[in-house]
Amino acid sequence: MTTNSSMALQESTLAQIDAAVRSAVDINDQWAASSPAARSALLRELASALEADRERLVGIANEESFLGTARLNGELDRTAFQLRAFADAVDAGEPFAVIDDEAVPGAPPAGHPRLLRVNVPLGPVAMFSASNFPFAFSVLGGDTASALAAGCPVVVKAHPAHPGLSNAVFELALAAAQRSGAPAGVLSMVSGASREVGVHLVRHADIAAVAFTGSYVGGMALQKEINARPRPIPFFGELGSINPIIALPAALETRGAELAATLAASIAQGCGQFCTSPGVLIAYDNAVTDAFVSQLAAAMDSQNTHAMLSPGIRNAFNEGVARLNRHPAAKRVTTGEQNGEKHPVPNLVLLDTGAFLRDHALREEIFGPSCVVVKVKSSEQLLQVLAAIGGSLTVTVWGAEGNDAETMSIVRGAIRIAGRVLFNGVPTGVAVTRAQHHGGPFPSSTQPQTTSVGLMAMQRFLRPVALQEAPAWLAGRGGIPL
Amino acid sequence: MTTNSSMALQESTLAQIDAAVRSAVDINDQWAASSPAARSALLRELASALEADRERLVGIANEESFLGTARLNGELDRTAFQLRAFADAVDAGEPFAVIDDEAVPGAPPAGHPRLLRVNVPLGPVAMFSASNFPFAFSVLGGDTASALAAGCPVVVKAHPAHPGLSNAVFELALAAAQRSGAPAGVLSMVSGASREVGVHLVRHADIAAVAFTGSYVGGMALQKEINARPRPIPFFGELGSINPIIALPAALETRGAELAATLAASIAQGCGQFCTSPGVLIAYDNAVTDAFVSQLAAAMDSQNTHAMLSPGIRNAFNEGVARLNRHPAAKRVTTGEQNGEKHPVPNLVLLDTGAFLRDHALREEIFGPSCVVVKVKSSEQLLQVLAAIGGSLTVTVWGAEGNDAETMSIVRGAIRIAGRVLFNGVPTGVAVTRAQHHGGPFPSSTQPQTTSVGLMAMQRFLRPVALQEAPAWLAGRGGIPL
Repeated sequence: MTTNSSMALQESTLAQIDAAVRSAVDINDQWAASSPAARSALLRELASALEADRERLVGIANEESFLGTARLNGELDRTAFQLRAFADAVDAGEPFAVIDDEAVPGAPPAGHPRLLRVNVPLGPVAMFSASNFPFAFSVLGGDTASALAAGCPVVVKAHPAHPGLSNAVFELALAAAQRSGAPAGVLSMVSGASREVGVHLVRHADIAAVAFTGSYVGGMALQKEINARPRPIPFFGELGSINPIIALPAALETRGAELAATLAASIAQGCGQFCTSPGVLIAYDNAVTDAFVSQLAAAMDSQNTHAMLSPGIRNAFNEGVARLNRHPAAKRVTTGEQNGEKHPVPNLVLLDTGAFLRDHALREEIFGPSCVVVKVKSSEQLLQVLAAIGGSLTVTVWGAEGNDAETMSIVRGAIRIAGRVLFNGVPTGVAVTRAQHHGGPFPSSTQPQTTSVGLMAMQRFLRPVALQEAPAWLAGRGGIPL
Repeated sequence: MTTNSSMALQESTLAQIDAAVRSAVDINDQWAASSPAARSALLRELASALEADRERLVGIANEESFLGTARLNGELDRTAFQLRAFADAVDAGEPFAVIDDEAVPGAPPAGHPRLLRVNVPLGPVAMFSASNFPFAFSVLGGDTASALAAGCPVVVKAHPAHPGLSNAVFELALAAAQRSGAPAGVLSMVSGASREVGVHLVRHADIAAVAFTGSYVGGMALQKEINARPRPIPFFGELGSINPIIALPAALETRGAELAATLAASIAQGCGQFCTSPGVLIAYDNAVTDAFVSQLAAAMDSQNTHAMLSPGIRNAFNEGVARLNRHPAAKRVTTGEQNGEKHPVPNLVLLDTGAFLRDHALREEIFGPSCVVVKVKSSEQLLQVLAAIGGSLTVTVWGAEGNDAETMSIVRGAIRIAGRVLFNGVPTGVAVTRAQHHGGPFPSSTQPQTTSVGLMAMQRFLRPVALQEAPAWLAGRGGIPL
């Protein structure tokens, strides 16, 4: 069996990174001006290529990520689905939508010349793959699909946790690109586990935007590099999220047992290695909550887990849980102990509310099957807890069916800190639709007005330009960039 | 006559700034959830209040800015026009637009729960007034209008160059807000010429976004402060632009005299104190260009100017022009000399192309009636000049009626570095329409995907949130935030 260490990707040299960016620059104008048909042909060929090689790819992915073939087959389905969804959007002309303000005669402010607002692709995009979705947030994931749909070439930074899969997917992508007629430089790949590779890439003068899904520390290091560029560029970073679950009495009283089972499965799903994994449960301090916490702990104790994505992630989980469990404000309620095994043990602790509000460390994401419980005395205190969390991809509110003032204020507090608010179910599993928004206030996203999942993700890589009194040959291009 | 120095606004204390932000926070939820009717009533009352007090306001503005009553009346018209344009957009429901993806039964990725994408206002906005548009980019200018329309309260930082006007407009705005029924805290104002006032404002934990129009140095200082916040927030900064004019032979051969007169007037308009003032003319090195440059210099020599906005701006112009004129690569072609008068003298120099490409200082904006000429030997060199400029609110291309490969490559180069590309006329004068885009690549804008003029400016202050399986009482709000 192939392991991460034996399959390590080579470190790209700086010259190799420069060459990858150069290949994107060389075809940038060609791809920016490509037709809807050319773009959708590429996206559909990429989707088909993934599906055609499904068995081999899922095998490699499972060897490298340990996520299991059921989950990985589903993830491959999703990755192909979103490639085709962007192809459909391109075919429908979405990146080429224009606003055409005909000339109005007369003096300003009412009178004005004709203005035609078109969208132009930003240029070569550096895309940092994530470890936890080896298909959907990697070489041919949503960032790549949306950037290609927008007319931007992509330089992928492969993730060192799945080197074999990255290579395999990249190779089939090159062949698919060729079959579709797309220029070869539309997709290139660099690799390496060192900080230097990523830093060189985001410092490159010809990189026009950066998409990143990963850790807070890694993302902030890249953001700092980008801020220091002579010309800063957009950085679409997803840096971590603790995804609160607010369990109101109306829900716990009527279906506590069912919700405990659902939540425990969500916390343990994929070993908790989801950006939307629930990391904190917030509930009123009463007997119903105590019963629910006991049910939840029992359900978590009975979850099966698998090996984590990498030894580094496994060690970080052990350390995070150990630090949490020995905190004076924490009381562990699950019974399982972490051990030397690759499989992590789900961990639930009850935290003192005051300590949670005071101590930033208690609000940090622990990547893996870990959750904390914060009991509150009032809706005011619940809102304080949400405000202390400050930014999250999701907040889930169970039991908000009534529109009394208290429920409304809690839902308002949830909306204030989140990009997606759920009223049923659990946040793991992010639908790829038009209405999806995967990007909440900082730090869950560095650009909370944009999404990295769903059809609106394409907008990140387009920039409006107003053409004033454009000549007929330009105005007549139907929004296709020059 | 009242002068800037005698009318200096008081420095707000830190406690006063905190109180201004607090007044915005106190009514934030109320304004965020306000109806279309409430918002448009406020915007229309503000527009009417400006018009009703026109004579007095224009008088104060002219005493403080010296821009002349004709221009200032036009600017007041524009300011009222854009307040009403945002009111119309609110009445049409634009901030409340939703994307409703009905539930699709079945397994993912095709199956998904109902997702309703709504827009929520970011929260209290800090708005930094500009000196050069005392109405349109000040207390009730486009940033304020678009933020109020989006449902955000605004804390205005008054500009010290027009303190009397800022106070007068703010007072009538408070009365208009009261008449419309809007909460008083929807608009507040702080003032002061010190760096401390602005820094305290953008560091404030309750400020959710910052809009700024001003100098590169001032804007970058604010950006640095915002990057250092525990939670960075969006910074919509417009930091300067040199607005190239590309004069192709087809235009100069047929209407050189007319274009020289038009361009000279644009350079001198408002003493060149426009963000879209043309700062560089790019043309092929030939006899037609030489004739045009002579015509332009003569036309610039005959322009009348008025006093600049402030003694500081006047001094900076003198220094910038002196530095430029004594540069070994520069040859002055206008004849007028700067003198001790308040009125600046228009300045045109011919620059060595190699020096322009090498020396960043030669590409920096000189705020005032200054323009440089860069003659190029080829379209390749022309593209190098554009690339060296890198980011500009506008690029104007005269003579691009033909779609030969060379013209197309020049237009492509213009689009790459600009937010608006004009094919006729001059860039001064920015129409307030839906298709307008006032925001080009850095440094002309810190967020080139957004605009500070035109109806899309409202989008800067809205953030999407996906509501998953929202209860009926929430889904039925028609996109109005909770």
